[in-house]
Amino acid sequence: MVKTDILIIGAGPTGLFAVFEAGLLKLKCHILDALPQAGGQLSELYPKKPIYDIPGFPEVLAGDLVDNLMEQIKQFEPGFTLGERAETIAKQEDGSFIVTSNKGKKFHASVVAIAGGLGSFEPRKPLIEDIEFYEDKGIKYFIKNPEKFRDKRVVIAGGGDSALDWSIFLSNVASEVTLIHRRNEFRGALDSVEKVQELKDLGKIRMITPAEVIGLNGAEHLESIDIEENGAHRNIPTDYFIPLFGLTPKLGPIGDWGLDIEKNAIKVNNALDYQTNIPGIFAIGDVNTYPGKLKLILCGFHEATLMCQAAYQIINPGKRYVLKYTTVSGVDGFDGTRKEAPKAVVKAIV
Amino acid sequence: MVKTDILIIGAGPTGLFAVFEAGLLKLKCHILDALPQAGGQLSELYPKKPIYDIPGFPEVLAGDLVDNLMEQIKQFEPGFTLGERAETIAKQEDGSFIVTSNKGKKFHASVVAIAGGLGSFEPRKPLIEDIEFYEDKGIKYFIKNPEKFRDKRVVIAGGGDSALDWSIFLSNVASEVTLIHRRNEFRGALDSVEKVQELKDLGKIRMITPAEVIGLNGAEHLESIDIEENGAHRNIPTDYFIPLFGLTPKLGPIGDWGLDIEKNAIKVNNALDYQTNIPGIFAIGDVNTYPGKLKLILCGFHEATLMCQAAYQIINPGKRYVLKYTTVSGVDGFDGTRKEAPKAVVKAIV
Ligand SMILES: Cc1cc2nc3c(=O)[nH]c(=O)nc-3n(C[C@H](O)[C@H](O)[C@H](O)COP(=O)(O)OP(=O)(O)OC[C@H]3O[C@@H](n4cnc5c(N)ncnc54)[C@H](O)[C@@H]3O)c2cc1C
Ligand SMILES: Cc1cc2nc3c(=O)[nH]c(=O)nc-3n(C[C@H](O)[C@H](O)[C@H](O)COP(=O)(O)OP(=O)(O)OC[C@H]3O[C@@H](n4cnc5c(N)ncnc54)[C@H](O)[C@@H]3O)c2cc1C
Repeated sequence: MVKTDILIIGAGPTGLFAVFEAGLLKLKCHILDALPQAGGQLSELYPKKPIYDIPGFPEVLAGDLVDNLMEQIKQFEPGFTLGERAETIAKQEDGSFIVTSNKGKKFHASVVAIAGGLGSFEPRKPLIEDIEFYEDKGIKYFIKNPEKFRDKRVVIAGGGDSALDWSIFLSNVASEVTLIHRRNEFRGALDSVEKVQELKDLGKIRMITPAEVIGLNGAEHLESIDIEENGAHRNIPTDYFIPLFGLTPKLGPIGDWGLDIEKNAIKVNNALDYQTNIPGIFAIGDVNTYPGKLKLILCGFHEATLMCQAAYQIINPGKRYVLKYTTVSGVDGFDGTRKEAPKAVVKAIV
Repeated sequence: MVKTDILIIGAGPTGLFAVFEAGLLKLKCHILDALPQAGGQLSELYPKKPIYDIPGFPEVLAGDLVDNLMEQIKQFEPGFTLGERAETIAKQEDGSFIVTSNKGKKFHASVVAIAGGLGSFEPRKPLIEDIEFYEDKGIKYFIKNPEKFRDKRVVIAGGGDSALDWSIFLSNVASEVTLIHRRNEFRGALDSVEKVQELKDLGKIRMITPAEVIGLNGAEHLESIDIEENGAHRNIPTDYFIPLFGLTPKLGPIGDWGLDIEKNAIKVNNALDYQTNIPGIFAIGDVNTYPGKLKLILCGFHEATLMCQAAYQIINPGKRYVLKYTTVSGVDGFDGTRKEAPKAVVKAIV
């Protein structure tokens, strides 16, 4: 069981920044996210696109903003459990919570901060018979650790950026990369499309288009796939099949936790601390709703900050907290580091 | 008379970022600030110090954050009136406002956003007889345009960063710089103290310490000052006397505008849009108060953003606004520029 002060569900920008604000208050955080990497929508949907409305950044790539946030919080040593979804929650007698993931991992925390964005990202699965049977036996919807595919045969399906980018990346890792798409046209960044064209010409990526995967074969593990190409059927031996047809966010199990839900979002008390109807559970960022709510990154930052103050009061009842400016008081990391402004000197001029 | 959609009182980080959010909504802003430069507390009190809690910046110098904000908003061409204090406000029959500055300048706006921080910064004036008479006749508490002192004789008084830094700067501009301080010890950044020592040794700055200015002389304009040094009196001819004894923020005249005030801050409706008790007047950033308020820069950014949505409704009654992501829709500047993410292509691989 993981024990922490604040369990943060969702590693998007809001959840990440909450670690920083909690850390200033000496509270420890653990983050749980269904995706294999941190960054929420920014990493999963538009890592290479510029954002223009982050205060102080006339322009910042979404992926860079996530990197910056990871750098900013690392001194507070957050725990990360990635690739698992928060499934159930149980309030304990002392007011704390135990959250259990879809893989049975348990998290014990005094405060739960739901920073779940539009919900946990679930892959769009192609309609192929027995596909569930092969999940974890050769079918992957996410690539968590590319080394898994070293010297293996891999078939990727899809026509967007993920299919293009992973084909490029794995062409240097796997023994064989096949990219299958229903059409000849791909939709993505120009340089990704051009790079795939180049790797195809070099024989490093095999393209089969227009084509579709229609069957999966293998006893214990995936051994081959059946495809339909121009009306004809063909069998292709492979170790892995990676369908990359995009993700849809689903509020999912959190919807059954007894929280007030309105239009797929969790109602919170925005006049005070972004707490939900269940004391000790907060909702911050895209996942919450209140009058005038804007689903913007910068709003999540503010909500996370105010939420942490309330969490502090729950975890340290009766203790008075006096706001300190980071510039004036510095930042003490849990890893023993200290950041501080250079001190003024008092010195005679003679 | 300056006409604008939103008059922003205060050019601190909150007021500056409000220009950006207003610009996204096609609203024009004009900013009024008592200080000679933009940036509020960051520029005036700690421009060279690092801030650690701006989301996405593991560390940023206050002055650089202000520069970044100025760069981020420049496409929306805000008007600036610096060095003037908002003095009075008059609501017009059509619900708009006319604000008048201490120098009689008038501003007509549909919406007023007070982003006044801790109040307008007022200089701490030394207690010297007739000092008010010489204001604008040789006494300066702020340096707005250093060229004014080109080839003039200047006396600076004070023992902190401002006195040190302006002495250094003006030693290259003025014909003669004298620095007077009550003690031999100065308090400031180490390199500033060392630089002044060096310039003193080179004869480029004359130091008189410990000493105090006790009198001012001149018929139409300042001609000389009297000082007391070790109990002895001395007269020093000069064109300008610049006492730099720090600033104190004063809510000042805004306190008499009929707004609900609590502990020197303006009460706002934080459950909705940061509007004050007077419809059409908003208060954002350090200047406002509500339950759970934190006087932090990142909170001002959020408040400015929500405020602009409400301003949009006042200025475009009944018009529905649909939130657009800057990444998806780009940013159209009032100066004709357009920023946008590179578009995805749809391209065949053959
Ligand atoms: C194309 C695009 C462009 C955008 N452009 C801008 C822009 O220019 N400016 C701007 O401010 N905003 C923009 N946005 C919106 C911005 O991305 C969101 O406001 C932001 O991502 C919200 O952050 P968050 O941390 O609240 O949630 P998210 O980023 O959505 O992160 C939530 C995370 O929680 C996880 N999660 C949810 N439920 C569970 C669960 N039960 N268990 C485990 N994990 C869970 C999800 O997997 C996800 O990783 C854009 C969005 C898109 C799609
Ligand atoms: C030493 C120090 C360190 C700090 N460190 C941090 C930190 O690490 N993190 C953090 O988040 N915050 C920090 N702060 C606080 C931060 O500076 C403020 O939260 C921030 O400046 C507030 O911004 P603002 O735009 O609301 O107001 P301000 O920056 O105060 O700007 C308000 C402006 O309004 C003007 N004004 C007021 N009234 C009038 C009037 N009637 N007419 C014309 N102009 C007027 C003032 O002259 C001023 O320029 C620190 C503050 C100090 C002093």
